[in-house]
Amino acid sequence: MANPIEQPAGTPEERSALRQRVATVLWNDLWLTRRARWINGSIVALILLNVMAVIAESDNRLAIPYATLFRRFELLSVVVFTLEYLMRIWSCPDGIRYGHLGAWQSRWRFIFSFNGLIDFFAIAPFFLSLLLPVDLRFLRILRLLRILKLTTYSDTIGVFARVLKREGRALAAASLAMVSLVLFAACLMYMLENPAQPEAFSSIAQAIWWAAVTLTTVGYGDITPVTFGGKMLGIVIMVLGVGTVALPAAMLAARFGDEIQAQRDELEAKVAESLDDGVLDPAERAAVEKLGAELGLPAAHVDKMIELQKQLHVDAGQCPHCGKRL
Amino acid sequence: MANPIEQPAGTPEERSALRQRVATVLWNDLWLTRRARWINGSIVALILLNVMAVIAESDNRLAIPYATLFRRFELLSVVVFTLEYLMRIWSCPDGIRYGHLGAWQSRWRFIFSFNGLIDFFAIAPFFLSLLLPVDLRFLRILRLLRILKLTTYSDTIGVFARVLKREGRALAAASLAMVSLVLFAACLMYMLENPAQPEAFSSIAQAIWWAAVTLTTVGYGDITPVTFGGKMLGIVIMVLGVGTVALPAAMLAARFGDEIQAQRDELEAKVAESLDDGVLDPAERAAVEKLGAELGLPAAHVDKMIELQKQLHVDAGQCPHCGKRL
Amino acid sequence: MANPIEQPAGTPEERSALRQRVATVLWNDLWLTRRARWINGSIVALILLNVMAVIAESDNRLAIPYATLFRRFELLSVVVFTLEYLMRIWSCPDGIRYGHLGAWQSRWRFIFSFNGLIDFFAIAPFFLSLLLPVDLRFLRILRLLRILKLTTYSDTIGVFARVLKREGRALAAASLAMVSLVLFAACLMYMLENPAQPEAFSSIAQAIWWAAVTLTTVGYGDITPVTFGGKMLGIVIMVLGVGTVALPAAMLAARFGDEIQAQRDELEAKVAESLDDGVLDPAERAAVEKLGAELGLPAAHVDKMIELQKQLHVDAGQCPHCGKRL
Amino acid sequence: MANPIEQPAGTPEERSALRQRVATVLWNDLWLTRRARWINGSIVALILLNVMAVIAESDNRLAIPYATLFRRFELLSVVVFTLEYLMRIWSCPDGIRYGHLGAWQSRWRFIFSFNGLIDFFAIAPFFLSLLLPVDLRFLRILRLLRILKLTTYSDTIGVFARVLKREGRALAAASLAMVSLVLFAACLMYMLENPAQPEAFSSIAQAIWWAAVTLTTVGYGDITPVTFGGKMLGIVIMVLGVGTVALPAAMLAARFGDEIQAQRDELEAKVAESLDDGVLDPAERAAVEKLGAELGLPAAHVDKMIELQKQLHVDAGQCPHCGKRL
Repeated sequence: MANPIEQPAGTPEERSALRQRVATVLWNDLWLTRRARWINGSIVALILLNVMAVIAESDNRLAIPYATLFRRFELLSVVVFTLEYLMRIWSCPDGIRYGHLGAWQSRWRFIFSFNGLIDFFAIAPFFLSLLLPVDLRFLRILRLLRILKLTTYSDTIGVFARVLKREGRALAAASLAMVSLVLFAACLMYMLENPAQPEAFSSIAQAIWWAAVTLTTVGYGDITPVTFGGKMLGIVIMVLGVGTVALPAAMLAARFGDEIQAQRDELEAKVAESLDDGVLDPAERAAVEKLGAELGLPAAHVDKMIELQKQLHVDAGQCPHCGKRL
Repeated sequence: MANPIEQPAGTPEERSALRQRVATVLWNDLWLTRRARWINGSIVALILLNVMAVIAESDNRLAIPYATLFRRFELLSVVVFTLEYLMRIWSCPDGIRYGHLGAWQSRWRFIFSFNGLIDFFAIAPFFLSLLLPVDLRFLRILRLLRILKLTTYSDTIGVFARVLKREGRALAAASLAMVSLVLFAACLMYMLENPAQPEAFSSIAQAIWWAAVTLTTVGYGDITPVTFGGKMLGIVIMVLGVGTVALPAAMLAARFGDEIQAQRDELEAKVAESLDDGVLDPAERAAVEKLGAELGLPAAHVDKMIELQKQLHVDAGQCPHCGKRL
Repeated sequence: MANPIEQPAGTPEERSALRQRVATVLWNDLWLTRRARWINGSIVALILLNVMAVIAESDNRLAIPYATLFRRFELLSVVVFTLEYLMRIWSCPDGIRYGHLGAWQSRWRFIFSFNGLIDFFAIAPFFLSLLLPVDLRFLRILRLLRILKLTTYSDTIGVFARVLKREGRALAAASLAMVSLVLFAACLMYMLENPAQPEAFSSIAQAIWWAAVTLTTVGYGDITPVTFGGKMLGIVIMVLGVGTVALPAAMLAARFGDEIQAQRDELEAKVAESLDDGVLDPAERAAVEKLGAELGLPAAHVDKMIELQKQLHVDAGQCPHCGKRL
Repeated sequence: MANPIEQPAGTPEERSALRQRVATVLWNDLWLTRRARWINGSIVALILLNVMAVIAESDNRLAIPYATLFRRFELLSVVVFTLEYLMRIWSCPDGIRYGHLGAWQSRWRFIFSFNGLIDFFAIAPFFLSLLLPVDLRFLRILRLLRILKLTTYSDTIGVFARVLKREGRALAAASLAMVSLVLFAACLMYMLENPAQPEAFSSIAQAIWWAAVTLTTVGYGDITPVTFGGKMLGIVIMVLGVGTVALPAAMLAARFGDEIQAQRDELEAKVAESLDDGVLDPAERAAVEKLGAELGLPAAHVDKMIELQKQLHVDAGQCPHCGKRL
């Protein structure tokens, strides 16, 4: 597929200038300039429209009358996402995130990064379906993956990964406790309720469904204990279980906010350290901006932080640690 | 509409003195003096009675026999709220919140503030319905907006706004995770359960209803998976999802309390800074009181804080930052 | 009612010694000595048996065959609780909690304290029912109040009161947000679902029941939206609401643990301050023990803390603030 | 039962070397070397297979056709777990956890530790069923206990125990509040709903089932209030109760993560203290490693921490407490 963007007309210098402008929009500015806002906003809108299309197409009352419309919209989306993917690969060496690596190495790193793989799987199924006959319903699920393209504009995955890594041991411990509780609750309830409700509690597997529904406090009510013993056990399990099952969730929640605060602190410390001698030489500024980009903070945010720290440094007679006037 | 309050009889001096007394009750003292307590308490009571009236009027068993009563109560409420609104606008330049601006500028700021708009929309529909025929049920909803008039007496909206702004990135990340989880859960469950329950899981939109009901742990039980695969997936979604959906809630909760504490600390720091030289000159006191008013703290609270800080300042030989004896 | 405990035989000295021994068991030691453990353990057991009796008596299958047994147990309970109440009043001046006041003043304070009133209402209904004919079912509820007698052995009420006071503004703000959300959700859902389900959503009051069941995530499923618009609104309300309704709960939870930690820190600071000059004179020790008693900490716990602080003080060359070796 | 592992062939020296190698795999390395990973991974896999077998065997559609397979798998599991148990006892004196005690004392301590008892009860029922006729369903529950063998590889139980101990008072207070709320809610709802639904609310015990289902927000919907008064009370209970019942859970969750962080800090402090004089002599290293083992941290983790602290110590001119440049 000969893509005109890949071999633009003109001299190498013009090509390089174009690549830099593309990189500015797709990698660096994002929401800083008007043009970047327009282009990235359109991509985000198209992603959301794709998600709605997947939902609408599953309803036969909409899928059948508007079949042509859905097919054309899918075609348009694939074209746009393919263009975006190729331009992202092409402009990667000028982007802030992988720009410190060599041209081809940076592209390689992007292609096998989480976002690069998502961008690929957002379009691959379409091209695959042109070659092979694939189950349409399975394709639909894969098209839903396009919502993950939004992570390009948010550091969610990174924050999640860091929280999971730091709290790994605690989460594993809490999860083991939770799984044990579900299993014991299911097993005991099966013993107590199986004689009274041989249909509803026909096996421990069925009782596990009841235990999961109960301990997550979802409580559909499709299976409930009816015997006195079953209800007594149910009360004990509910009261104890609510705490245990909420443990991993509450832990994640508490650390999630902390992690984002820690990121900001880390960047601030880096800026303060770089300014130790009163000046921020280009190498230091590049290092700070790279850290900011890794943390998903826009360049403007980083610049503001640097200005603030510079001013702080000027005010003499401060405690170097807490910043209070001595 | 010639309002007698707007052009009170008497000399300009008498008028000014009256305006100041009105401002004291409606803007500054709130719950400090007996008269302010009476007047503001009556307004709060009327707001709550209005909410109850809206609820009661929706029940035909009450609406039909007591129709005249409801109409008269509505009339009384509109009169009182209109008077309150006009007096608030009139006395605004003497109020603590916008008093530092010019007379007309302060009124302008109030009219387009959140509380000003709510005060307007609490009465506007009534006057509109005199001129145009409006759907009565829609009017009822607008009358319910009167409950938001209570925010005049509480800084809730401000605290919420600050929390949302500070935790914006984290909340956006958690919300994206939540929405993705709801969509994937719905899509997968639709694929597994649609063949077995073509009615209940007739489209992905229906499955989204199931996913939202499940992941928020509401669990009505009107739609539940019945196949083995659906139940297995349901268990996985419930166990994973409880954490994800609880994330934004738990984060908001944790920061909400912090924010209110931060407000108090900010004011205290301001007071301490103003007392640096041992005296609090009128300009400093005005600045502190203005900050207190912005934070929704009554003047009495601020005065107490100033007294405390003054005493602290007298005790020599202390670290000015941590207050410990050196 | 001439109570033999009130006028014990013997000289005033003997009487005073007896009162001191009673106070030691009922007020001071609680779980420190074997005798105190026996007596207080029996009272706790009797309270729990009372609760079980109230539950069991509501079931006609137990109430009718064992009527005599229940009546006798009630008689025994009232006798024991009356004795306990009178002895608590009598020995109050020797107790650690109110002992610093005069004899009659301390008794007065106890009688009108939370625990004193609970002790009174635990027995008063019985004596009242001897004089007047009272609804038996109402009496049963009052008998359930006896479970609150357990607060004598726990500082729950105090901790709750302090948390509520400190977090009052934040809780009020969150509660206002919650009530507003419930009302708006109910009102909008009533408008959308009333035409489709005139029975289930017959009035806003009914819709409030739905909104409360949904926003607390209880989700019985007795009333659910069935229209497309109703389900869409339901999803929005569930996702937004879960956070808002969880706010007060999560805030209370977070501060509850902090409060208990703060209590311990406060006592430790008091001990450290009293030991500033290296010795703990009797007046200081009394002040510390009084604070410990107010915080619901047993004397033994306080003594251990004093020992620890004394040892810390001996180690010279420490930073007086953080306790680390310089 | 003469076990060949207990009296291995060869000289005492060879026996001792073998015991040390067994101890390295079962007690010390766990996941550090390839051999240890293989052996411990197999044990964990067998435990998980056992849990699945218990679940599958409860379903008659699987239990009857595969009866022989299940019996053989049970036999294999018992043989492996018995071997593991005996080798664990035998190699205990060379293990890191109890190795500091004498040979027999360390074994004694292990046998009566939580993990030792679980290892015993994982196999005991099988041998008991060979001697006595036991209810098969009861045996199945006991076989589920094997999941607790996983705690050998995780410090969950220890962390839980420490959290419960430290937060004991707060949890007791919150639990008392919760139980009181459940009882009062049940009692009041029984009074309001019993006349309208004599079947559903037939006794306070039944109402307690409703209260527990509601206050834990499980909300099955099998029993719900239908009267106006009952629904009003229900709303109040739901709104108040959600906070109270969530208290113990949220408190546990908050402290759980803190506890794991505190463990790491404790170990770090120990390492830093041991390095006070710049060197880590063998006795200090052993003490640090023992603490690490008690906290469930692998030796490699501890070594990394020591390296880090050593490097920190070399950098002169730092505050020894906060690590900031002076």
